[in-house]
Amino acid sequence: MSAFALKGNICFSQGKNKISVHEQSYLICENGVCAGIFKELPEGFLHIPVRDAGDSLIIPGLSDIHLHAPQYSFRGMGMDLELLDWLNTITFPEEAKYADLDYARKAYSIFTEDLKKSPTTRACIFGTLHVESTELLMDFLEETGLKTFVGKVNMDRNGPDILQEKNAEESAKATLHWLSDTSEKYLNTKPILTPRFTPSCTDELMKKLAEIQQEYHLPVQSHLSENMGEISWVQELCPKTAFYGEAYDQFGLFGGKGCPTIMAHCVHSPEAEIELMKKRGVYVAHCPQSNTNLSSGIAPVREYLDRGLHVGLGTDIAGGHSLSMLRAITDAIQVSKLRWRLTDDSLKALTFEEAFYLATMGGGEFFGKVGSFLDGYEFDAVILDDSFYRHPQPLSVRERLERLVYLSDDRCIKGKYVSGRKLF
Amino acid sequence: MSAFALKGNICFSQGKNKISVHEQSYLICENGVCAGIFKELPEGFLHIPVRDAGDSLIIPGLSDIHLHAPQYSFRGMGMDLELLDWLNTITFPEEAKYADLDYARKAYSIFTEDLKKSPTTRACIFGTLHVESTELLMDFLEETGLKTFVGKVNMDRNGPDILQEKNAEESAKATLHWLSDTSEKYLNTKPILTPRFTPSCTDELMKKLAEIQQEYHLPVQSHLSENMGEISWVQELCPKTAFYGEAYDQFGLFGGKGCPTIMAHCVHSPEAEIELMKKRGVYVAHCPQSNTNLSSGIAPVREYLDRGLHVGLGTDIAGGHSLSMLRAITDAIQVSKLRWRLTDDSLKALTFEEAFYLATMGGGEFFGKVGSFLDGYEFDAVILDDSFYRHPQPLSVRERLERLVYLSDDRCIKGKYVSGRKLF
Repeated sequence: MSAFALKGNICFSQGKNKISVHEQSYLICENGVCAGIFKELPEGFLHIPVRDAGDSLIIPGLSDIHLHAPQYSFRGMGMDLELLDWLNTITFPEEAKYADLDYARKAYSIFTEDLKKSPTTRACIFGTLHVESTELLMDFLEETGLKTFVGKVNMDRNGPDILQEKNAEESAKATLHWLSDTSEKYLNTKPILTPRFTPSCTDELMKKLAEIQQEYHLPVQSHLSENMGEISWVQELCPKTAFYGEAYDQFGLFGGKGCPTIMAHCVHSPEAEIELMKKRGVYVAHCPQSNTNLSSGIAPVREYLDRGLHVGLGTDIAGGHSLSMLRAITDAIQVSKLRWRLTDDSLKALTFEEAFYLATMGGGEFFGKVGSFLDGYEFDAVILDDSFYRHPQPLSVRERLERLVYLSDDRCIKGKYVSGRKLF
Repeated sequence: MSAFALKGNICFSQGKNKISVHEQSYLICENGVCAGIFKELPEGFLHIPVRDAGDSLIIPGLSDIHLHAPQYSFRGMGMDLELLDWLNTITFPEEAKYADLDYARKAYSIFTEDLKKSPTTRACIFGTLHVESTELLMDFLEETGLKTFVGKVNMDRNGPDILQEKNAEESAKATLHWLSDTSEKYLNTKPILTPRFTPSCTDELMKKLAEIQQEYHLPVQSHLSENMGEISWVQELCPKTAFYGEAYDQFGLFGGKGCPTIMAHCVHSPEAEIELMKKRGVYVAHCPQSNTNLSSGIAPVREYLDRGLHVGLGTDIAGGHSLSMLRAITDAIQVSKLRWRLTDDSLKALTFEEAFYLATMGGGEFFGKVGSFLDGYEFDAVILDDSFYRHPQPLSVRERLERLVYLSDDRCIKGKYVSGRKLF
């Protein structure tokens, strides 16, 4: 048995609507999981090592359940375009560069070092279609100590020549190659099946991926109902489906038993799609910054929450420009306010408590018991030091937490643990 | 004559739709104004001092034309409320504390130091109703070297007991006292008449302020058409006016000859109000972050721009939580995209060029020839060092500028000049 404690101002969600605050308390980690919060160390733990974080805040690690590693290199650039133009003009040409392993090494070492320093402890990450580069990305991620799912991307149609697999067979073959290399290789880095999105994948490829999914029991990640142009395109490509989600579901790649699935965006999902997501237990990756930057719209997250769907947050680098999941929390609140104001006042804006829940427990659930400091949850923790923000008045810990999240300043991040392992 | 040059990658607006980029060039300052950009120092300037900013970017200083100094202390807190509740619950109780000069000293020293370090070179700032505290704020601002307009706030109705002037006469008297203390006292810090907003000011007070305005030739700043509840309230309070703007205009406090005026927000301005703003040359202070946080809505900035109104950006601390005018640029772009998507696709989203223009030349015009590096403009410059952002690919200066603005990271700000005076 190994145990230690962090001491500081402990803040975490206890469900959707409540943030618990324990000032100057000990958060105990035992064998990688949370084992209680105490004002004084209890008997049996009196002699465990303690890291005293002083007046810092300690929050659960954040789960970024949708982002693209190769796009980190151009974050915050070319932001005046809509989705399909942005993919063709900016994204695909950059992703094509990852055929070059030297380029990938340079780019992914930057991305993984920055992700390690961020408030994120868990992530679901898109690579590119390239097997070797994606394996390199996984090597780098494994070194960080973060726990991640990483996908070699599948795409065998509608891409540019420089970024497309020859056909379904080649794409499936490459996927099997990648899985045979990586399935058992890492402790913290796991493969996730990643058909880019319906317009990029032929029916034949989808069928083959479904077979692979069943054989390897892989989770799945993809995109859904992000942009109106994209949705019309999918309708043309799949005339027999009633809605976009069916384009995945017809192949068994849309959640359900043994197929945990994340669908990014779900901005414009019709009623039947929402029902099917709920039925299949699909995770919605809400990416407010990306949906804003690419003029996609605002997802009805309040509705998803109220109806009991699984929802987490994603930075969607580089549709989103910020790698900070703290920023994703405030973006989620902000766009929900605008949606309430401009589109549908029956859906109240998200509260701070709810958005904090989404970034911690909401997305964390995809990884197991992750995203809270309740007993038995994996010990993912981030230490946030806000002492360089000066203020004239005394502040409560809850006020400081909200300010920290709104200011989303990397400089605050002073420590990080994943399943009880200290990253820094 | 005094002259010097900054050397680096020089970026500035040349009107609404064009950002000029001069790589590795010299920007010459002569007697506080811009005197040309050159690849090599021209004859006559060969021996002037040069500050070599290396590979940094050099941009015009940004003009924040709407923010509240006393609210900086609670930025990023209590953000789950709408305007009128937020004023009563959070804002008014905090502003009341500035009756205590010691509290004001503590709070304003923090605010002014942070503003000095920010990318802002010019600002139009609300104080509180307290004369002494507002003078202290002006003292501190003068020390920073920034050029600002500062308003002692007027409010004689509908406030809480702790934050309201006894009556119009007392409010006007305090204003005259403040003006007599400060009108000629500072080089860089000037008074601006600041009726808080119509619900806070009786007709009698407005009349007296108009008299003061005419006597002292003061500019004016206030709030306009921010929130639906506020607008209805103004309609009740001023039943004879056809729209909110008339509530100011009936007293001559809405722009026009000799009365330069800034109206913050203008989110829900009806056609007649827009026309009157144009006619009177009123400056719209667009505050996208605040309008989002307080669920106010999204102003039709594209329309204001196309119709030739004066428009600049404001952080509106602390309706807005970020003091960074870089962030205000991206917020303006982002909300314009959501407005296009959700409300009115006849108004195209703002481009990066346009939003950069708003933050520099748009708001800068309120201060004179400010916000560009064109010849004759005042030499307000900010040096931005983005070297700690690593990237695998070569980037153009234009790409780096967009990334810098999107990432809005204070750490980049390495130098600042106002009218040729070096702040750091």
